[in-house]
Amino acid sequence: MPTSNATLITPKWILTLENEHILTNHSLVIEQDIIRDILPSDDARKQYASAQEITLENQLIMPGLINTHGHAAMNLFKGLADDLPLMTWLEEHIWPAEGQWVSEQFVADGTKLAIAEMLLSGTTCFSDMYFFPEAAAEKAADHGIRATFYSPILDFPTPYGTDADDYIEKSIQAHDRFKHHPLIDIGFGPHAPYTVSDEPLIKVRSLADQLGMPIQIHLHETAFEVQDALDKTQQRPSERLQKLGFFGPDVQAVHVTQANDTDMTIFKEHGVHVIHCPESNLKLASGFCPVQALKDKGINVALGTDGAASNNDLDMLGELHTAALLAKGVSNDASALPALEAIKMATINGAKALGKEDLIGSLKPGKQADIISIDFNHISLTPVYDPVSHLVYSANGSRVDHVWIAGKLQVKNKQLCHFNIQQLQETAEHWANKIQAS
Amino acid sequence: MPTSNATLITPKWILTLENEHILTNHSLVIEQDIIRDILPSDDARKQYASAQEITLENQLIMPGLINTHGHAAMNLFKGLADDLPLMTWLEEHIWPAEGQWVSEQFVADGTKLAIAEMLLSGTTCFSDMYFFPEAAAEKAADHGIRATFYSPILDFPTPYGTDADDYIEKSIQAHDRFKHHPLIDIGFGPHAPYTVSDEPLIKVRSLADQLGMPIQIHLHETAFEVQDALDKTQQRPSERLQKLGFFGPDVQAVHVTQANDTDMTIFKEHGVHVIHCPESNLKLASGFCPVQALKDKGINVALGTDGAASNNDLDMLGELHTAALLAKGVSNDASALPALEAIKMATINGAKALGKEDLIGSLKPGKQADIISIDFNHISLTPVYDPVSHLVYSANGSRVDHVWIAGKLQVKNKQLCHFNIQQLQETAEHWANKIQAS
Repeated sequence: MPTSNATLITPKWILTLENEHILTNHSLVIEQDIIRDILPSDDARKQYASAQEITLENQLIMPGLINTHGHAAMNLFKGLADDLPLMTWLEEHIWPAEGQWVSEQFVADGTKLAIAEMLLSGTTCFSDMYFFPEAAAEKAADHGIRATFYSPILDFPTPYGTDADDYIEKSIQAHDRFKHHPLIDIGFGPHAPYTVSDEPLIKVRSLADQLGMPIQIHLHETAFEVQDALDKTQQRPSERLQKLGFFGPDVQAVHVTQANDTDMTIFKEHGVHVIHCPESNLKLASGFCPVQALKDKGINVALGTDGAASNNDLDMLGELHTAALLAKGVSNDASALPALEAIKMATINGAKALGKEDLIGSLKPGKQADIISIDFNHISLTPVYDPVSHLVYSANGSRVDHVWIAGKLQVKNKQLCHFNIQQLQETAEHWANKIQAS
Repeated sequence: MPTSNATLITPKWILTLENEHILTNHSLVIEQDIIRDILPSDDARKQYASAQEITLENQLIMPGLINTHGHAAMNLFKGLADDLPLMTWLEEHIWPAEGQWVSEQFVADGTKLAIAEMLLSGTTCFSDMYFFPEAAAEKAADHGIRATFYSPILDFPTPYGTDADDYIEKSIQAHDRFKHHPLIDIGFGPHAPYTVSDEPLIKVRSLADQLGMPIQIHLHETAFEVQDALDKTQQRPSERLQKLGFFGPDVQAVHVTQANDTDMTIFKEHGVHVIHCPESNLKLASGFCPVQALKDKGINVALGTDGAASNNDLDMLGELHTAALLAKGVSNDASALPALEAIKMATINGAKALGKEDLIGSLKPGKQADIISIDFNHISLTPVYDPVSHLVYSANGSRVDHVWIAGKLQVKNKQLCHFNIQQLQETAEHWANKIQAS
């Protein structure tokens, strides 16, 4: 029976992504943390007469955006070093800065900053791969954003761990700690084929099966990575991982700017998801992910921003814009990755990649109430022939007006509901001053 | 002597683009329509003691953005048709819509809508190529935005003209009408090599020399255009135009996704400017402009959004973001087109392309006071290591806070000063309803 603690959201348009249609004159009912109903507004006002109604004039509601790859804490390095060749950027700027500064406090503060930026721009669920994932997970839990933390695994020591076994052990500890949290998941984050050797990869696969933890790995990010592997091992990284039995539908391969028929056949056969990070790939000149070819092969492609040090923002609508445009350029076909398909990459495809498609990624009664509204009251979104076109080709994160996660309001009228912005900015500037002075 | 009608602008940073430095603790003095001075704030307050001071905390001021290619009135077609192969898009959607709807009123209303969007996102000068340029120019003059209208020239009839001679005659009439206007210029806009035959191109060249009118032409937009010309005439369009004596430093070649050594040598020899429209080129899968190669050759490259029907926004900071990222991807070099060079494409290079470098494009005493401020009070621009990096890689048009053109305030605190927004939106929706119903 309808209860009195329901909230009725009545926008101009509802994009459920359960089909190709846009609903008008409909309302969505939130009850506790879930979507209770989506029905004509007249009926909704009768059936849920005691509900609070939020009318969003000239706005569209849709599933919250899902950012499937990033390094949230790196927000504190945003703009520290740009326009440099990849190895110069890593070896002379990013790795030294990480070596000197990364700590639990750095990760907590950087992740909080990233969460604020993500919420404001409509991301309701993100995936993260960075040091001290428990410190990051605590911040996500505190601020009520849904997230999966892929605990990093490397062969070599960093401020966070000593060797592969140590990293794996820490992954399991983090998993144990958060396994009953409604918003937080912990997965394995073996960094890349060239930084993790066979034994730990086999161990990760085995533990993932036992514990039901998902896996995310950087894969085929550059042509150099693939050629280097071929030179050293006479096989492509994808082939090596396949032979190790590493792949499965719980594995997300991030970047994949290099994918020949062999790679695509392997991904398809094992249900591997590809995470496309177009702006990072462009900025680091890593190559072009063949998005349309992967989709044509039936491989699930989701979208991520990567870390703010190689993007340099976490705006998923901006990323969507870039992804949609770039897919057309790269495939030499203006009809490639049409707007609705692009939006799916940032929502339901992301949910599938993270293994959360039963919970989120579309607006459907019974799913979690992870919902955003886009304000069309702006000259740049006027006039409207097709709101879906505007979402992809004309909007950006600054048009996000309301954000709910698990039914809780996080952003209202473009303002964060539960953050002290000034404190957040001061903390970030404090870190930047220290880092820049060093 | 300092007078009492000066305005002192005191931001956190001033990016003059006269050199590589960013000024802090400095103020810029506007007097009438010009930049009178840029000097330390303490000195400014003494020397211009009676001036009104506008303090812009945590903001950066820089030259207004220059959008060197567009079709402003097409804002009324924004999102009408997307994700279609180029010829389907043109032949089944854009051209029929233009044939049915384009009129003086359409152009006036569409251009006004575009001007509002451009002002809000920091464009202070734009270049336009569309039918009924006088109707468009009137709107620019009314609203105080700087613009050059490249009056369209084609071999065939449209709602605006009958044949090449008629279009040329109309160009000259428009020029005569606006030649003394401080903000408005009229140029020749021969559409493309494949839509304008030799005779009118020669005539345009001759008249341009006599009247001092600049020329803008779509050139080498696609590989098909070049191949088709080679098949039919055994020469590339660039070679044909060179033989006609068409090129000069008053010519802007728009798009140029195809440029081999021959083309680049021709452009360099004649001082031809290239207008890069990255988002349109991607969206229509036209090809990739070799920006870094053109720059390495010493060719001036400026930036344009193209029309809203193939972009679909007029946000020059967004375009800059795409341009900077794409240049790295296309040239396979993460150090290509560094942030400051990208900003120059959208400012001083644009001024050079339009023949206005003595007037605008940098902040320098004596130049026109075309100035914008960017508000860094946002989580997405926090922390700040290098404001130039944030302008290109993290900001977008929604961070533009103040806009002055020829010393007149056009946008204040992110709001248009001289527009009735509601009326503008109603007019646009009225057109869209008619067009969609047809």
